[in-house]
Amino acid sequence: MKKATSSEVTICGHTYDEYIEMVKAFHGHVAPGMALSGFMVDLACRNLPQGEYFDAISETRKCLPDAVQLLTPCTVGNGWLRIIDLGRFALSLFEKYTGNGVRVYVDSRKLGDWPELKGFFFRLKPKKEQDFEALMAEVRLAQASIFGLQEVMVNLDSVKTHHRGAFAVCPLCGEGYPEDDGETCLGCQGKAPYLRCEAPGSRGD
Amino acid sequence: MKKATSSEVTICGHTYDEYIEMVKAFHGHVAPGMALSGFMVDLACRNLPQGEYFDAISETRKCLPDAVQLLTPCTVGNGWLRIIDLGRFALSLFEKYTGNGVRVYVDSRKLGDWPELKGFFFRLKPKKEQDFEALMAEVRLAQASIFGLQEVMVNLDSVKTHHRGAFAVCPLCGEGYPEDDGETCLGCQGKAPYLRCEAPGSRGD
Repeated sequence: MKKATSSEVTICGHTYDEYIEMVKAFHGHVAPGMALSGFMVDLACRNLPQGEYFDAISETRKCLPDAVQLLTPCTVGNGWLRIIDLGRFALSLFEKYTGNGVRVYVDSRKLGDWPELKGFFFRLKPKKEQDFEALMAEVRLAQASIFGLQEVMVNLDSVKTHHRGAFAVCPLCGEGYPEDDGETCLGCQGKAPYLRCEAPGSRGD
Repeated sequence: MKKATSSEVTICGHTYDEYIEMVKAFHGHVAPGMALSGFMVDLACRNLPQGEYFDAISETRKCLPDAVQLLTPCTVGNGWLRIIDLGRFALSLFEKYTGNGVRVYVDSRKLGDWPELKGFFFRLKPKKEQDFEALMAEVRLAQASIFGLQEVMVNLDSVKTHHRGAFAVCPLCGEGYPEDDGETCLGCQGKAPYLRCEAPGSRGD
């Protein structure tokens, strides 16, 4: 029951090996979380409710957003993927006009048979002590068996994209910014992550 | 001076047409903001300071994060791209251990020669009234001439990734979550974006 061969395993129409190559090219390395995420996105896609246009929510910043971006049309930059960091390893795909969707999560009660996976997921040992090969083998064999599936109704207000309001020139930095943010841009309100920035005078004035 | 042919324009080693194909495949459609973003990432990459490992900051959620993800090793899911939404169309690439980096922004004072681009950037007319072809032609001709470049020192504290602390089982939803978040996970603290979720009792109990 837990046996699977390469040809049997598919992730959103890709073979497992193809998916792993996609992960290497995009994510940079084969993280166990990316393998897990591929099966999660696949399960969600196979259980979509009626509808044509689906948006995505990732409840974590780690790995899962990249699997969503690789396997669905939803990306951070096109606005169809929202990351709402609840610290849970879960995603939802939902019909964008009704909010009707599915949620896939790691069911912690189903990890008992998979010691490496359980150790990885609950961070029971340091990364250095993990047996990477054994862990990857467990992810590959477990596939979707360790996930839970829920029907959800997304609160569309909570995932609304910001309206494209008027843009103004910030009187301090001289850059364009959403007028709604105030008299100056958020960067000049102290929210920029920089200790030092080349002086405006040297910007070509 | 404003003339450019297809073969002359490159974006991080790709021809312009190749980049546009990458955009279609990943972002789903050719948004003017994605064309603009490609030239911005290219300019940043050509001006990196000394160093081996670079992380990225996008100061907007729109388009630019996707160009960073397509053209650099930095993605949202691998943690090397942070989105700090300041509403400014700008990005930084910085050496991850020192914070030393470059920032590229749209210089609003340089948009005067480009009426469609200016209209697009400052949202001067509704999308329906934009001349898409003329706009794309301007982006292609303007290339990096409308950007500013700054040297920055990133405040590394502000972009620190969360530590991988202990993981616990949430007593309410039964899912794994970072213990530091409290007695229950953030989802069960009311931060989940769902109006309705299949009852825990139906999760296979």
